[in-house]
Amino acid sequence: MIRINTLASALAVATLAISTQAQAQFAKPEDAIKYRKAAFNVMAAHTGRLGAMAQGRVPFDAKVAVENAELVSTLSHLPWAAFTEGTDSGETRAKPEIWKQSAKFKELSDKFQQDGIKLVAATKTGKEADFKAAFTAFSGNCKACHDDFRGK
Amino acid sequence: MIRINTLASALAVATLAISTQAQAQFAKPEDAIKYRKAAFNVMAAHTGRLGAMAQGRVPFDAKVAVENAELVSTLSHLPWAAFTEGTDSGETRAKPEIWKQSAKFKELSDKFQQDGIKLVAATKTGKEADFKAAFTAFSGNCKACHDDFRGK
Repeated sequence: MIRINTLASALAVATLAISTQAQAQFAKPEDAIKYRKAAFNVMAAHTGRLGAMAQGRVPFDAKVAVENAELVSTLSHLPWAAFTEGTDSGETRAKPEIWKQSAKFKELSDKFQQDGIKLVAATKTGKEADFKAAFTAFSGNCKACHDDFRGK
Repeated sequence: MIRINTLASALAVATLAISTQAQAQFAKPEDAIKYRKAAFNVMAAHTGRLGAMAQGRVPFDAKVAVENAELVSTLSHLPWAAFTEGTDSGETRAKPEIWKQSAKFKELSDKFQQDGIKLVAATKTGKEADFKAAFTAFSGNCKACHDDFRGK
């Protein structure tokens, strides 16, 4: 059983969201699009490494799992500040729903970040079962968001 | 005066290098190229935010500086494992010198990572002068490496 202080996690996410929001400084819409795609790309690579362990394609290595979970969690906070107005066209699969249903989009992205924090905690227990359960919860967020908010 | 345990920093970099190396799992050369470009893109965005403060274009904010320095330092360890053999062509400005002069390339990338660790320590003092000095040293690494190893 992993104990998580949910309020603390929520606050941490909120604080990060505010400060990354305040820093959102992209000269051009293309820069914001490139940045968020880059953050997702690096995140996907490291999520993939965790996924390989979660699915037993590579042996579970607690140290490698913690490193990748920490990276993924750190990166999980970044892309959202780059979904600024005017970045819904160009080299992006972002759907207009992101801006039309912004409360839902924020809810999903907040949950993703919170599950990332939980993933780090679970992985740090060193127990493969804890890691697998937390990874399943974490990675479920990708599909949940892509289904509604990412185009083909 | 910022005290840095240089040996500890060097060891940290070495350990990270080994474990990220071991994890280097890119299905295709294009994936490695995309990944390293993505890591550099995110790093550049946050280095730009630090640069704006270092150059006085935006007021120095110690909290924002620490957040960005930590992000940049974390990301500084990532791209190198993606400069694998066979990733010197395609959508990349990587010069063949990266593989021909690999010892020099490694030396520069190690220094970059160590200066990133020093940047975090300097920024955590909360002193603008310490931050500026460390940022100048850190960002000098970008040009040093690009001059020899990145094409137009």
